[in-house]
Amino acid sequence: MTSPLRILIAPSGFKECLDAEQVAEAIATGIQRALPEARLLKAPLTDGGEGFTRALVKATGGSLHPAIVTGPLGQPVASHFGFLGGAGPRTAVIEMAAAAGLRLVPPHARNPMATTTRGVGELIRAALEAGAARLLIGCGDSGTNDGGAGMAQALGIRLLNAAGGEIGAGGGALLELDRIDLSGRDSRIPRVQLEVACNWRNVLCGPGGVARVFGPQKGASPEMVARLEAALERYAAIIARDVGVDVSTMPGGGASGGLGAGLHSLLKATLLPRYDVLVRYLDLDGLLRGADLVVTAEGGLDARTSRGKMPAELARRAKHFRLPVIALAGTIDEDARVNYACGIDSFSSILEAPCTLSEAMDRAPFLIANAAENALRYILIGRGLPGLRKARGHPRPRARAG
Amino acid sequence: MTSPLRILIAPSGFKECLDAEQVAEAIATGIQRALPEARLLKAPLTDGGEGFTRALVKATGGSLHPAIVTGPLGQPVASHFGFLGGAGPRTAVIEMAAAAGLRLVPPHARNPMATTTRGVGELIRAALEAGAARLLIGCGDSGTNDGGAGMAQALGIRLLNAAGGEIGAGGGALLELDRIDLSGRDSRIPRVQLEVACNWRNVLCGPGGVARVFGPQKGASPEMVARLEAALERYAAIIARDVGVDVSTMPGGGASGGLGAGLHSLLKATLLPRYDVLVRYLDLDGLLRGADLVVTAEGGLDARTSRGKMPAELARRAKHFRLPVIALAGTIDEDARVNYACGIDSFSSILEAPCTLSEAMDRAPFLIANAAENALRYILIGRGLPGLRKARGHPRPRARAG
Repeated sequence: MTSPLRILIAPSGFKECLDAEQVAEAIATGIQRALPEARLLKAPLTDGGEGFTRALVKATGGSLHPAIVTGPLGQPVASHFGFLGGAGPRTAVIEMAAAAGLRLVPPHARNPMATTTRGVGELIRAALEAGAARLLIGCGDSGTNDGGAGMAQALGIRLLNAAGGEIGAGGGALLELDRIDLSGRDSRIPRVQLEVACNWRNVLCGPGGVARVFGPQKGASPEMVARLEAALERYAAIIARDVGVDVSTMPGGGASGGLGAGLHSLLKATLLPRYDVLVRYLDLDGLLRGADLVVTAEGGLDARTSRGKMPAELARRAKHFRLPVIALAGTIDEDARVNYACGIDSFSSILEAPCTLSEAMDRAPFLIANAAENALRYILIGRGLPGLRKARGHPRPRARAG
Repeated sequence: MTSPLRILIAPSGFKECLDAEQVAEAIATGIQRALPEARLLKAPLTDGGEGFTRALVKATGGSLHPAIVTGPLGQPVASHFGFLGGAGPRTAVIEMAAAAGLRLVPPHARNPMATTTRGVGELIRAALEAGAARLLIGCGDSGTNDGGAGMAQALGIRLLNAAGGEIGAGGGALLELDRIDLSGRDSRIPRVQLEVACNWRNVLCGPGGVARVFGPQKGASPEMVARLEAALERYAAIIARDVGVDVSTMPGGGASGGLGAGLHSLLKATLLPRYDVLVRYLDLDGLLRGADLVVTAEGGLDARTSRGKMPAELARRAKHFRLPVIALAGTIDEDARVNYACGIDSFSSILEAPCTLSEAMDRAPFLIANAAENALRYILIGRGLPGLRKARGHPRPRARAG
């Protein structure tokens, strides 16, 4: 007597193709074709970036709230925040990318010297006004490099230049920063608990600092990178002097163009590795406990996956429960096998024929379903292997070999 | 206590990329990475076409013999035949493609009106002279459409025109055929047993006739196809009248541009489905009996695979032994899932990233090994699943679902 296989489907989204929920749906389709009686649990993963709010709201049965805020270029943008469902303190969830994401900056206008996180502060304010007792802020997919200066200003913190005036918007303006005045900060801030889900590998300053690592993809030229580095160093020095916190190399301080550093030093937020946040808010441990097998997925599986991407973090966690983990991917790099050591026991590409990336993306749901079906079929073959030999009743192997 | 998994590796070659033996080697490399203790049996498959002689000689520990024969364009070509190893009657193995294959006809010279199977007859003669008591002839990958006329002439059979002269070379010349005279046929022919490995779906005449189905890929224009059809119909009618055998729609009669029909009617050869020949000569049943799992492969997996290609035939056979069968492929077509019904339980593409066909071919050994490794890893996951739940000792599933 075997009970139905319990499969946790917990994929990341495929960037610019399908979100995590759509990937999970496609995987479920394929698995159901291979094993209709499987019990499927779905937990689309989010990394703090785009989709973070919707994913957590959906997973907890919470609510989504629209808000018009200042976009990264100063333009008004239609944004949103959420409230988590369930018991406990009223917890708002905010995704920085929904107010200051790279996607909100058209390619021709990408200039991290100028883009601002002001909208993030406005979302925080909107959540406070809606009654939030706790705030969870997701970092990732940012289009800014202002250290969270705009966010701070939106909440009444004054960032002043030598003449005593408020500095302008954008990372470049931090070069003029002379002192920070917290006295006008929104009075509700000290009374709420603030948590930030971020990539702990991102730091504000130094050789691995955020301007150098992420500046170019946000549109910074080499000269801009140098100026942004100088601006963030100045920012860190003034924060250390005026607030008494050293954010220059703290884990996560560089998240979302330094927003992590600003949230921690100026709002006293706790920076948390994004995976740990998900473990808690999506109850991943509970889901893992209820599974026999984990299926994850990522657009590209490579050595970077093993360094902090969600599928690898999930696989490491799954190994605490001795669970097998498989991964489907659009693209598999030559170095992908390092992920075996993270607990991803096997993986396969969804591709079926030579094609371009865009052809593969067009057919992604179909290809993902097929790959999931065949992966399950392989697993079912293995499930049938032990003991089969006796049941088949055929003779023992002969000496012949090829 | 489990005994090591016994895996039969029986792939086809990847056309214009790797031969079956190279594919088997790459699969073995991947499997050994996943499961070093597996017991591997290798049986590279051949379909009667290119590589047929070498595969059978190698599998049986036989010998290979060079021979210079007339090529499809009349040019001398370096060819070969073999003798199978082992006990029993001295059996020669001949591959028609080694004397009249499409590969021996440069693209600019492809004209099945003119190409001849004379070299095949010369190989038969050479094998008889070397003492063959039995002949096994493989069909496939031909560049000819002459109904085996050239082969017959090389063995002393006279194909005469209305003026009583010998007709010329090539399928087109059959339009002049007036009668067949067997009196000069090599006298050793009746004393040897002749078997032909061919695709039984290929017929000589009619709507599915060989000229129409395969003529274009051998270089025939639509007009040529019509003339070749007429020529083969005339050939069949004269064979029926002069030899008393109706080859027009017999299974395998159309193999290798009608060589099957010529071998059967003029040399009294027995046409056999190519897979049955392999079952016998490679002892596939013996190998299947000694396996727990079968891994096959093909360059392209699609609906045609299920209609007589070797991996599907092998899978059907494996199901007599209740063996699971998996297939790796370079390219998987949308219609490939029909192969599940043939007994291929799961399959995956070797591709890892968007690419061109030629990029995939360049990296094929690497990609095949990776795909084999991950397929085995999936199977091993399944092998570990039953009973694991108890061993893990974690609680039963909760009601939560995504």
